Amino acid sequence: MATQKAPIEFYFDFASPYGYLASLRIDEVAARHDRTVVWRPILLGVIFKLTGMKANVHQPLRGEYLRHDTARCARDLGVPFTFPAAMPLNPVAASRAVYWLEIHDARQARALAVAIYHAHWGEGRDLESPSAVADVAATLGIDSAALLEGIQQPDVKDRLRRETETAIARGVFGAPFFLVDDEPFWGADRLDQIDRWLATGGW
Amino acid sequence: MATQKAPIEFYFDFASPYGYLASLRIDEVAARHDRTVVWRPILLGVIFKLTGMKANVHQPLRGEYLRHDTARCARDLGVPFTFPAAMPLNPVAASRAVYWLEIHDARQARALAVAIYHAHWGEGRDLESPSAVADVAATLGIDSAALLEGIQQPDVKDRLRRETETAIARGVFGAPFFLVDDEPFWGADRLDQIDRWLATGGW
Repeated sequence: MATQKAPIEFYFDFASPYGYLASLRIDEVAARHDRTVVWRPILLGVIFKLTGMKANVHQPLRGEYLRHDTARCARDLGVPFTFPAAMPLNPVAASRAVYWLEIHDARQARALAVAIYHAHWGEGRDLESPSAVADVAATLGIDSAALLEGIQQPDVKDRLRRETETAIARGVFGAPFFLVDDEPFWGADRLDQIDRWLATGGW
Repeated sequence: MATQKAPIEFYFDFASPYGYLASLRIDEVAARHDRTVVWRPILLGVIFKLTGMKANVHQPLRGEYLRHDTARCARDLGVPFTFPAAMPLNPVAASRAVYWLEIHDARQARALAVAIYHAHWGEGRDLESPSAVADVAATLGIDSAALLEGIQQPDVKDRLRRETETAIARGVFGAPFFLVDDEPFWGADRLDQIDRWLATGGW
């Protein structure tokens, strides 16, 4: 009875609005089934170079729909949403900051990821520069100078690179992407299915 | 009170497994809200040439996931599903057959679309050749010779071309795609949202 269930692995890119929408629901879905969630920022740009895919927002017709659909989904969920003027975000600094913080405090690292997503997609702020990321982190009591130095550390840079490579090796070709006991689910629209999967043990 | 509500426009490509999955639910969702559905086969290949997108099944990693995800979605819905050996389908003959039949009998045209989807994605049969389409139509009592001649008529060929062009002009960049009072929804995974949209009048 006391067997520890494997955490759900949540791969996301801060540049993805669907990742933001999924990030607001995944912990709750997991908790309903006594699961925790491991949050793993990755670089979708690196993956797209490999697969030949393009960011949705750059595709004719689809980019326009994406803006409409994400705003509609956010209203459906009742969550704040502002399409950032600066798009798409280069998420390298934000992602490194999360991995740097994880070395010291995993809970704080998750809180920073939530705060970054909120600032970028909830409020539309540009989170590309290290200083913008440090400003968000400061609201959580994280020392800005330590963060700015931390995201330059070779092991932190290497960690983000490795997580992205591991994701690719595990079949992650888009984001948000979820691994539930190695079962792959792609897209924010799979959360209800994940909920049923966890409730039933799969089908 | 007796105002006729506009039908839901359902754009689909016979080559798309998600179109098949959506086709098994859209009429029921619509009927719950006193709506009918207009079924419109289109050629996604023509649209992809314009937008630069590629069929999912041809994308590295994503193609493999697609096979896994579609089969899992079908089991979730409890519907028959067989990945066809011949992929992707060229849906020109099947699509023309639907429009040819619509001239004579709209109800039969919809029944043919259902039967084609079932034969191709439910049973995995190759539906590319006109004779394969005619064989499916024959099970509905449709004369094979008349169908084979009908899909060669210039106005039928032109109809399929025009429907695809109209779809593009209306912002359709993928399939399945739904227009609900001009509100665009893309993807089989939007059906629950469409259900809520119809129930609430939108948000």
